Amino acid sequence: MIYEVADIRIVPGQREAFEEAIRRGATTVIAKARGFIDYKVKRCIETPERYLLVVRWETLENHTKDFRESAAFGEWRAIVGPFFAGPPMVEHFEEL
Amino acid sequence: MIYEVADIRIVPGQREAFEEAIRRGATTVIAKARGFIDYKVKRCIETPERYLLVVRWETLENHTKDFRESAAFGEWRAIVGPFFAGPPMVEHFEEL
Repeated sequence: MIYEVADIRIVPGQREAFEEAIRRGATTVIAKARGFIDYKVKRCIETPERYLLVVRWETLENHTKDFRESAAFGEWRAIVGPFFAGPPMVEHFEEL
Repeated sequence: MIYEVADIRIVPGQREAFEEAIRRGATTVIAKARGFIDYKVKRCIETPERYLLVVRWETLENHTKDFRESAAFGEWRAIVGPFFAGPPMVEHFEEL
């Protein structure tokens, strides 16, 4: 089990719409992907346009290959991408 | 309840010693602070010197005031600070 952590900056003034979109994208697209376990979204207190999306996957490849190389990735990006102020910074983590 | 998320870069070649130190600092110092709930450490797969420390606190002030302005903060930094390649990037988050 690994964690995908996406550090996201959105365009100002779009928090409410983005929060609806990321919930919808996660539950209707990501949650159906092979190896998906669960997800959480964290909203930054100091930087209002910053969010962390944390997705647990069974394996690294479930995210980097199975999901990113599937049509679902395009569906996901169509839902949340319009809110992004730039490309999210995405890396993967193991828990100590 | 809020999340402290510290994005940490350590000096190369010190992973094992740092992982022992951060566990020790979290359990012997941070865990005794007012408002502490729990903590997790995540180790980055792509960037071997990157870690995320995630601490749950009852309130924002339990971290920013009660902990950071206490002697315990100095004890904590004495344990983990020598491993840091630079100041950690620390912000706070609410869960959606």
